[in-house]
Amino acid sequence: MERFIINSALDMHLHLRDDEMLKLVASKTSKDFVGALVMPNLVPPITTKEALLSYKKRIKEACKDDDFNPYLTIFFQVDYTYSFLEDIKDEIIAVKLYPFGVTTNSQTGVSSMDVEILRPTLEAMSKLGIPLCVHGETKGFVMDREKEFLPIYESLAINFPNLKIIMEHISTKEAVTLLDKYENLYATVTIHHLLLTLDDVAGGGLNPHLFCKPIVKRYEDRDALLKVVLDAHPKIMFGSDSAPHPKNNKEAADGAAGIFSSPIALQVLTELFEKHEKLDNLNNFVSLNAQRIYNLMPIKKEVNLIKKDFIVPEIYSNETEQVVPMFAGKTLRWSIE
Amino acid sequence: MERFIINSALDMHLHLRDDEMLKLVASKTSKDFVGALVMPNLVPPITTKEALLSYKKRIKEACKDDDFNPYLTIFFQVDYTYSFLEDIKDEIIAVKLYPFGVTTNSQTGVSSMDVEILRPTLEAMSKLGIPLCVHGETKGFVMDREKEFLPIYESLAINFPNLKIIMEHISTKEAVTLLDKYENLYATVTIHHLLLTLDDVAGGGLNPHLFCKPIVKRYEDRDALLKVVLDAHPKIMFGSDSAPHPKNNKEAADGAAGIFSSPIALQVLTELFEKHEKLDNLNNFVSLNAQRIYNLMPIKKEVNLIKKDFIVPEIYSNETEQVVPMFAGKTLRWSIE
Repeated sequence: MERFIINSALDMHLHLRDDEMLKLVASKTSKDFVGALVMPNLVPPITTKEALLSYKKRIKEACKDDDFNPYLTIFFQVDYTYSFLEDIKDEIIAVKLYPFGVTTNSQTGVSSMDVEILRPTLEAMSKLGIPLCVHGETKGFVMDREKEFLPIYESLAINFPNLKIIMEHISTKEAVTLLDKYENLYATVTIHHLLLTLDDVAGGGLNPHLFCKPIVKRYEDRDALLKVVLDAHPKIMFGSDSAPHPKNNKEAADGAAGIFSSPIALQVLTELFEKHEKLDNLNNFVSLNAQRIYNLMPIKKEVNLIKKDFIVPEIYSNETEQVVPMFAGKTLRWSIE
Repeated sequence: MERFIINSALDMHLHLRDDEMLKLVASKTSKDFVGALVMPNLVPPITTKEALLSYKKRIKEACKDDDFNPYLTIFFQVDYTYSFLEDIKDEIIAVKLYPFGVTTNSQTGVSSMDVEILRPTLEAMSKLGIPLCVHGETKGFVMDREKEFLPIYESLAINFPNLKIIMEHISTKEAVTLLDKYENLYATVTIHHLLLTLDDVAGGGLNPHLFCKPIVKRYEDRDALLKVVLDAHPKIMFGSDSAPHPKNNKEAADGAAGIFSSPIALQVLTELFEKHEKLDNLNNFVSLNAQRIYNLMPIKKEVNLIKKDFIVPEIYSNETEQVVPMFAGKTLRWSIE
């Protein structure tokens, strides 16, 4: 039987939420991944050392049986001082910036992307070597939001040349092009932006379980992302942006944005890279690039993929939560042994 | 109190469905409108005189207390002969053409839009003076489907110069432009394509109750439609495309396409035309243009709109059906007296 080994898989963009949802979803990543960059957009968001350490403890409890390292982030605030960042530095991997109101729990995001307003915090981060992760969308037309945000990425890259800036979950061909223009720009890419277009969300029936921000775009965008990812572009890391929402918040009159892809991420990626005869590049995308960009030295942990059908569960649930995964009920060609 | 009178309102694109749903929704149109062009995409579709007459009877029963004229259509089939069409002519207002698989219940639609394949039927319709209504979408990328279909409209317009061709529920600025290029092209426009963009469906949370085919597009498309409608373009008629689906088929993992707008159509249109100081043109859009294009002589029936808040019901239901209307729970500025 055909096999493939993924070494020390890293998910560099993950939502684990909290409480019962955290307990339900954490192991879906921690079982196979060796680490994940965990998003800070709880309610309220993680903005203090106390909240950070407490959240880290809850995550570790939720995946206590696994060799798994949660790399925590804090929620960007314009009043973060050098001394605050210096004090918290060893506990975080990055600071995550959300513009106000662009996605789930971003109501406390920054209201202006004016470089001068952001400068004190970003200069402190530059000096301390703390990377900046950004949800790069404007509040424009839903299909144009990332493209409209690119000049802001450019401005940040130029003004803070020593700051590592990670364009999170890029979704357009224009973002792919921008990546190579500035040395200090990096990116994460999700599996859904590699596989889907707006046709999958709204081309047939409306599929709330494939609805996310940034929304999946056109075929040419998907194909541009796919090309650089399959070629193991050294500045691109895998970040699932797996974002669980209760089923009844998704199948609703005002459906929540986010795709729960953790349980299928490695199987889908293996299928995709194999299909394009690029399996040799998969470990770069799901581990080595992130290790280099973030200076990580994860423990060794092998995941054995075997070419055997895997039917994606219709739902994951515990006593209080029910979450529908991406591709629920579909058959994938690879399984985790 | 401010008032406005709509005379002999006509909805030139309406889905009434059948059975219990028909009983629930028919009066939402028949109460105020004097007539409506009723779509034939039942399961199975209306393709015989017998089915047509039987459906007309059921519609009349469902709205028996109202002065209302259902203008029936049949579902285009390439094997309709001249004699069949001649026989059914007096019972129908038009023939509706669906390309295969582009919307609800279009599985029996035409598999090719090749003019030569369509020619015998379309020539018979031309000779008999039967208009052709078309759902003009390709199976391309969801935002491009109407634009991609426009060359087919052009080909039909050129090849059948004596055929009245109605481009149903146009949704793009390109369709607006095409309208004036051929004398025999006409169009219907919905309220949702005049008011909404993709941002309303997927820009915030995902809203299944505003999901339809063709999908609502960009701001420039909406604005181009709005301009010609407010100016009472003589080739454009109101057609709601009101399409009820059960609530649990809309708020679902595979949500049905269609917006149930009948109960609010005249109120919303009055508010819209008043806001743009174009109330003088509203009767052209909702009645006079259709009378002229289709040679109708409807009875006189006045609807009195008064400027008084109207809170849209959260749901319309009977014993077996539940339908969420467009703008459920929102407050409109005009009511029907």
